[in-house]
Amino acid sequence: MRIRKKKWVKPFLEQEEEYLLKDEYKGKWLEVFPYKRIYLEIGMGMGDFISEQAKRDPETLYIGFEKDETCVAKAIMKAKENELKNLIIILDNATALKEYFIDGEVDLIYLHFSDPWPKKGHTKRRLTYRTFLDIYYDILNDQGKIVFKTDNKGLYEFSLVEMTNHKFALEEISVDYHREVKDEPMTGYEAKFVSLNQPIYYAKMMKKEKL
Amino acid sequence: MRIRKKKWVKPFLEQEEEYLLKDEYKGKWLEVFPYKRIYLEIGMGMGDFISEQAKRDPETLYIGFEKDETCVAKAIMKAKENELKNLIIILDNATALKEYFIDGEVDLIYLHFSDPWPKKGHTKRRLTYRTFLDIYYDILNDQGKIVFKTDNKGLYEFSLVEMTNHKFALEEISVDYHREVKDEPMTGYEAKFVSLNQPIYYAKMMKKEKL
Repeated sequence: MRIRKKKWVKPFLEQEEEYLLKDEYKGKWLEVFPYKRIYLEIGMGMGDFISEQAKRDPETLYIGFEKDETCVAKAIMKAKENELKNLIIILDNATALKEYFIDGEVDLIYLHFSDPWPKKGHTKRRLTYRTFLDIYYDILNDQGKIVFKTDNKGLYEFSLVEMTNHKFALEEISVDYHREVKDEPMTGYEAKFVSLNQPIYYAKMMKKEKL
Repeated sequence: MRIRKKKWVKPFLEQEEEYLLKDEYKGKWLEVFPYKRIYLEIGMGMGDFISEQAKRDPETLYIGFEKDETCVAKAIMKAKENELKNLIIILDNATALKEYFIDGEVDLIYLHFSDPWPKKGHTKRRLTYRTFLDIYYDILNDQGKIVFKTDNKGLYEFSLVEMTNHKFALEEISVDYHREVKDEPMTGYEAKFVSLNQPIYYAKMMKKEKL
C-alpha cells in the first residue's frame, strides 16, 4: 500500500484500513465491493459533501481522493460516525489517480471548490488543467460526467475554457447555482458562501466523443 | 432595397440612405467602402456601443443590425451627430443576415445584451440558438470571433452550452466582466447594470476547426 511508505502519515491513519484505500483494487472495485457504480470526489477536503452524499445514495460506491492527511483523518472520523460502508478514502495526489483506476472504471467525478491556484505560474496545478483532464477522460467511462463547483471566478473561467477545448463538452452550467433550492449536500465552503449570498459557479461536463 | 418594401418603416428612415443599408453590397462591402475589416453588431439596439466603437476605430467598417425601427431611427440620429462614415445600419431580422453577407465576409460579431427569451417555448428566438450559430459560422471568416455579453444569467448559461456544442469554441470568458476597468464603450444596458453593481457575463468565441 502506497500510504504505509510515507513517513508523515499519522498513526491514526494507519489504524484505518477500512476506509483508507489501496491500489490493489484497481480494475476490481465493483467486483470486490457490492455497489452499482463509482463516484469519485477529487480533493474531497474534510468530506462534508461525500459523506452526506454516500449516506443518501447507498447503491453507489463513493471514493474520496485527498492529499492532505489532516483532512483525510477528519473525513474518516465522519465516515465512522455515520457507519458508512460505501465510502472509501484515498490519501494521495490526483496525479496518481491511474494507480487506482483502470480506463473507464469511474462513472462520475466531483471537483468541488478545488484550490484555485490563482497565479499564472501555478496554472498546471489546477485540477482542471489539461494534464488532469487527460487522466479524468481515461478513467471515466463513455457516459461519464464531471461535476464541477467553485466560488472562485478565476478558476471557473479558466476551467470552462480549458475543459471545452480539451476533451470535455458542457452539458449544463450555472453562474448562480443556488438561485433554485437544491436538495443535495453542500461542502463546508459551499455552505459558507451561500450564507454570505455569494454565487456558486457550476458546470456539468461530459466526455467529447472520440474523434 | 428590402426596407422600402415594408409599409411600417417611418418616413424618417426613408430619408436615411446614407446609413441604412442594403443588400446590394453583399460580397462587395470592402470593395465599395474603404475599410480594412467588418465588425457586425447583431441586435445593436439604439447603437450606444457601436457608434462609440466606430468613432474610436476608424479603420473598421461597423455594421449594426437591428429589427426595431425606433431603435434604428435613434441609432441613425446618433451616427449623424457624430458624423460617422464607417457606421452602417441594417434594419432587418437576424434571420436575413445571409441576404447581406457572403460566407467568410465578416471579421467579428458582437452580441450584446440580446433579448433573453426566457421561456422554454421561445428558445429558438435566442440569438445564440443553433440556427443563428449556423449563420454566424458561415458569414465569419476562419479567424472570425463572436463577442457575447449579457447581464442575463439564463441566457449566458444557455449560450455557453449551445455555442460550445455547436460550431464554436471558448477563447475567453468572464463571469464578472467589469471587475477590471475596461477602456471600451458600454451599451446603455451595460452602464445601467454596472452602476447597480450587477455582474456582466462575457464570452469570446472562435470558430471550431472544420472537422
